[in-house]
Formats: sequence, C-alpha cells, structure tokens
Amino acid sequence: MTDDRPLNPALLPAGLRDLLPPEAETEATSVEAIMDAFAAHGYQRVKPPLLEFEESLLGAAGAAVADQTFRLMDPDSHHMMGVRADMTPQVARIATTRLSHAPRPLRLSYAGQCLRVRSAGLATERQVAQAGIELIGPDSPDADAEIAAVGAEALAAVGLTRVSFDLTLPPFVPTLLDEAGFTAEAGASLGRALDRKDAAAVTELGGSLAGTLTDLLLAAGPAERALAALEAAALPPGARALAKRLAATVAAIRARAPGLRLTIDPVEFRGFRYHTGVTLTVYAPGRHEELGRGGRYLCGDTEPATGLTLYPDAVLRAAPPRAPKPRVYVPVEADATRAAALRAEGYATVAGLEAVADPAAEARRLACTHVLIAGGLTALAAE
Amino acid sequence: MTDDRPLNPALLPAGLRDLLPPEAETEATSVEAIMDAFAAHGYQRVKPPLLEFEESLLGAAGAAVADQTFRLMDPDSHHMMGVRADMTPQVARIATTRLSHAPRPLRLSYAGQCLRVRSAGLATERQVAQAGIELIGPDSPDADAEIAAVGAEALAAVGLTRVSFDLTLPPFVPTLLDEAGFTAEAGASLGRALDRKDAAAVTELGGSLAGTLTDLLLAAGPAERALAALEAAALPPGARALAKRLAATVAAIRARAPGLRLTIDPVEFRGFRYHTGVTLTVYAPGRHEELGRGGRYLCGDTEPATGLTLYPDAVLRAAPPRAPKPRVYVPVEADATRAAALRAEGYATVAGLEAVADPAAEARRLACTHVLIAGGLTALAAE
Repeated sequence: MTDDRPLNPALLPAGLRDLLPPEAETEATSVEAIMDAFAAHGYQRVKPPLLEFEESLLGAAGAAVADQTFRLMDPDSHHMMGVRADMTPQVARIATTRLSHAPRPLRLSYAGQCLRVRSAGLATERQVAQAGIELIGPDSPDADAEIAAVGAEALAAVGLTRVSFDLTLPPFVPTLLDEAGFTAEAGASLGRALDRKDAAAVTELGGSLAGTLTDLLLAAGPAERALAALEAAALPPGARALAKRLAATVAAIRARAPGLRLTIDPVEFRGFRYHTGVTLTVYAPGRHEELGRGGRYLCGDTEPATGLTLYPDAVLRAAPPRAPKPRVYVPVEADATRAAALRAEGYATVAGLEAVADPAAEARRLACTHVLIAGGLTALAAE
Repeated sequence: MTDDRPLNPALLPAGLRDLLPPEAETEATSVEAIMDAFAAHGYQRVKPPLLEFEESLLGAAGAAVADQTFRLMDPDSHHMMGVRADMTPQVARIATTRLSHAPRPLRLSYAGQCLRVRSAGLATERQVAQAGIELIGPDSPDADAEIAAVGAEALAAVGLTRVSFDLTLPPFVPTLLDEAGFTAEAGASLGRALDRKDAAAVTELGGSLAGTLTDLLLAAGPAERALAALEAAALPPGARALAKRLAATVAAIRARAPGLRLTIDPVEFRGFRYHTGVTLTVYAPGRHEELGRGGRYLCGDTEPATGLTLYPDAVLRAAPPRAPKPRVYVPVEADATRAAALRAEGYATVAGLEAVADPAAEARRLACTHVLIAGGLTALAAE
C-alpha cells in the first residue's frame, strides 16, 4: 500500500511524464511529418474524442484492450464511458457509422493520445501516442502492401530509413491444426509450445505436424527464407491458401518498396487477437522496441480492412536527433521589422523585455545561438 | 434518468464528437500553424500528460477548474488522479519544478486536449483543445503586450487578421472598494450589481463610488475611451496604480501591434479567479464565442507570469475555409515514380488497387480532383 506516500508537487503517476524542450517540439514535428506522409497518399484525417461510451469503445476490435481501459461515469447520461486505450476501434466505428456510405476503398488517418490502466509489455508508459492509417474495403495483397509501403515512407520522413517489417499470419496455425484434426485441447498445448518457441515440445506434441511445424519454427527470419520453407512444407488446402496470400503480399510490398527489410515468423500468432490475415510489426535496426504494428482485421465485424499504427514516442527514441531551430536574442531597442524578417527566414526570436548592458551575455544566458547587435546578426560560439 | 436509453453504436456522449474529413485535417494544420507562430517568438514546447495526481493538477491555478475535472483512481499508487481540464496549471507546475532553474524570462508553449465534466458557458463541448503560451518571470507591461501581440500573430497565421482583444483588470474593483472602506458585505452586493452591468443598482449601492463606478461601467468599449474615463476618474492610489499599468500595457500593445482592435471593460472582474493583473479575452469580429483568454497570474503562487490560451475548435469555426489539397487518382498500371513526383509537388495521390475501365469515373467516385491517364495529369471538372 502506498496510500499515504507524501506527494511531491513534481511527482507524476507511474507511467506518465512531461516532455520538455526540445523533445516535446521534436515529437510534435515528427507526428506532423508522419501525418503529412499519410495525407500525401490520400489518407484523410479523422479525430475521434478521448472518451466514448464503453459499449462503442470496447466492442469488436476494442475488446482486445478492454482490461487496459480507464472507465468513468458520465454524469449526463449515467452510462459508463471509457478513455480510449487504442484509436483503431474508434476509427472502425467512424468507418461503419458516419462514413458507412463514403466510397470504398476508404483511407483514413488519425493521431492522438491514448491512456492505459497498466503498462503493457516492454513499454512502461500509460499515456501512449498513436499515429496511424486504416484502409477499409479491399481485401487484397495490394492493400496490405500499400499499408506497409506508406508506413515505411512515413518513418523515412522522420529519418528512419532502415526499418524492418516483421510479418506474421495469425490464422495460419489455427487453420493448420484444425485441418490436421487436432482437438481443441491438443491444439492448445501445441499452441503454447509454439508460443514458447520450444522446438522439443513441438516435436513431442506435434503428431503428424511435428516435422512441418518444427521446420516452420526454425524458418523464422528473412522473408524469402520463411516463404521457401512454407513453399516446401506439406500443407492442407486452407493453410496453403494462407501461405500463398502471404507470399503474394511480400511480392506486392517488394514491388512498392524494394529496399524494405522484411522478416516472417510463420507460426507466430500471439498478440494479434483481432487480426484475420497478414500482420505487421515495425522495428528500427538493433532495437527491441516496436515502432508500430498493424494488420488485417474485420472493420465492424464484417468489412475487410487493414491498418498500421505507429507509436510516435518510440519513433522519437529511435529517430536521429533533429537540429534545433536557431534562436536569436533581440535586444529591446532593436528594430521590430528586422526581428520579423529573421522569423520569416526560420529563426526563433527571443525578445529582450528590458535594456541589458551585455546583449551577447544575455543571449547566452537565454540559450540563444545568435544575437542581434546594431542590426547585425552574430552567431555565438558554443561554450 | 436516462440509464436505460438504448445505445446506438454511432452515439457519443453529450459534448463529445468526431471530427471528420476535412475538418480534422484543418484543425490539426491550424494548431501547428499557431504553434509555429509561438515557436518563432522563442516559446518552447512542453507536453504534460493527460492525467496527473489531483493534488498537483488542482492546486493554485488549477482550483478554478476543480469542479469540472474528471477523477480516476490510480490502481498503481491508490492516489486520486484527475484528467486535465486546463493546461495552464500543468505548465505552471513544470515551470516551478523541473524548469525552476531554467533562465527567466521563461517562454513555454503547449497544445493538447482537455476534458471537462460539464460544458462551461456558451461552449457545449466537453473535450476542448488548447494551444497556448506562458511568459514566466517578468512583471511588466511589455511582457503583457508580448503575449497579446504573439497571440494576434498566431491567429493571423490561420487567417484571423481582424480579431479583438478585450482587456479587463480583475484586481481593480476589489482594490477600489477596499480603499474606499467598503465592508466585505457591502462590497459583495456592489460587486454583484457590477456583474449584472446594473447601472441603477450601482448608483444605489455605490456610496462615495457611485459616480465613479457608473462612469466606468458606461466607459466599457474601445480602449482609448475606457482609458480616458479611468484617467478622468477620482481614484485612490492603489486603483490609480492599476489604471496606469493598464494604460502602459495598452501603449505597449499598440507599439507592437498597431492595428489590433482593443477594448476595455474597466469594472469587469468575473471569470478570472486566479488572475492578478491585466487579462485578455479574444474574439473574432461579429462572433460571441471566445477564441482564447489569458492574463497575468502568479506561477506557483509566487512568480509573476502571464499567458494566453487559444481554443483551436473556436478558431476553426471562425477562420476562413482552407483550400483542400488536390487529390489525384493514380490507376494501378501507372508509373510509381510519376505518383511520387506528384506527391512531392503537393498533391495527394490515391492509388488504384485494381484495374478499372474508366479511371476518370473512378477518380470522381473517390472525390479526387485530378486523374493520371497515360502519364498525363487531367483536372476533373467540378460536377
């Protein structure tokens, strides 16, 4: 119990934090660069509210985050509301209600903050920014590929050019087990062994699939190697169709983004509870933190859709640093039109509010890079 | 009671809404244009979290919105948290804790969403966007004027060039009544009469101040008229000093932003509970909805500060419409490098995902303004 812990006014609840200069500026600029890349591909922005009735927030796709959602009583209607933990279910709601008659393919984008009751997985934050796209209507490898290619372009816009997309196919293992006649109980044991990447247990529990599943487990890695293993495997028709769809998706991504690093884990199926086809997880080279994830699902339980959510906080940590805007100290006696001209050239001006004896010293004190003296712009040497 | 009202999946709680295309895009672009104007004047962005412990959120400046704040139990610490209803108290917390050693004047900016339990005043929204600046440290007419001039420049950046700043001086009436020896009870009655703009009651209850207060009540309007009335009034020393400060602030604003429309209500003092000096309320011509408000206060109860919060939702309603980005339908067989070149030129491209017989018809169906046919860009006539 920590109820009586004395509160320091600087203390924030666990998992919540302030972004200070210059990080807050960098994060906002990165989100807008990502959204600009989405807009350039015809994705149109929507902005759902932070709060909704829990029935609409937690139905369908939203059920996956139900246990992470903060709830509040609405004093107006006396219904329970939830603070969104994920924006995809909100965008799906918009697509199936107010935009149900908008022409398909429907391309929507969104950016905003989400709150979570507990920290999930590796991330320790309870407030998570999201910036994403949804492509609603088509069910094709080209649609899946567009999402990956546009996502890669958005990450490149913030300097992340060497990202890796990890593809999985959550329905593959359940379809394979079902076609091989596994009981639910035997399938669950085998599923847990696959979850643990436990090749010995997969061999032991795999029955007629032991060889196939062990081969596929070991084939996780670069896309072409995994696709070759799937091609070589003896698969029943349903699993074969899923494998072909994955291969077609990889080919479509390669056509759009030839340099993109693609990996496949053919027997991974955790963590994508509402996904019905190819899923994507994005990583920066050498980092374990996810930059984003997405994949194919059913929008409003019936309409084919795919999407990708990027996590700007993680993107910010992985992206190369940005050069700060140059800052000019403008003494109080300086010409205002000169300061306006400097702003138009891209400088930030910091106005003196009273006369100072040494403008250069004052400029340094205020973390300026330049000072305006007698109308002339002087760069200050870094100390 | 509305507990058992059946819920339509499209229904949102009262005061919460979806922004759809193109409004969501316009709002986001407007916020960034406002933030760019703030950054050009050296205001550095901070991003406090949506949730804080209620002790830090509702202390000092935050007490003004305590009764509008949603509360949540933190399952981690078992302390109560609040969802912010206003960002100014959060920025003040940052300035007095993590940035307490940062050099003054400290210029900070912020943008984000706030939630309110009840709708306040004329606004019906319970989710309110804010974009603002705080200037912490100096206590001078020049500092107050900078806030007004930078705010006007930010509004001009989104096309609102004819805004009006309404100035008030909340400590003026209390100081005047105190210096004239009014009891708390008599002062409160007179205060309510001033609140109602009830000149007859002010005359009846005003005692020795009846003439002065009636003159000042009627002098509300263009800044120069109100300042002349204050100049002509017989004022005790404390009230006189406040009137001089207001006149100096108007002169400093005029020096920075000569064309700005300024009005003054010298005896208005409601709605600015934590303000200690000149306050600002911003209006667009012919509209009653506030575009923003701010003014002088004590940051962390001790440090002089002034600030201005703009309301992007209201700004969006008042601003001239923006031309949408031109949208080009790019048939599936078109050259990908041509589409990339069009994006670089500022077009949004909408990729065809399958072959269509009539690309121009498909472009119209998808609300495109242009179509790419055989490498040539064709503008579609508006229907």
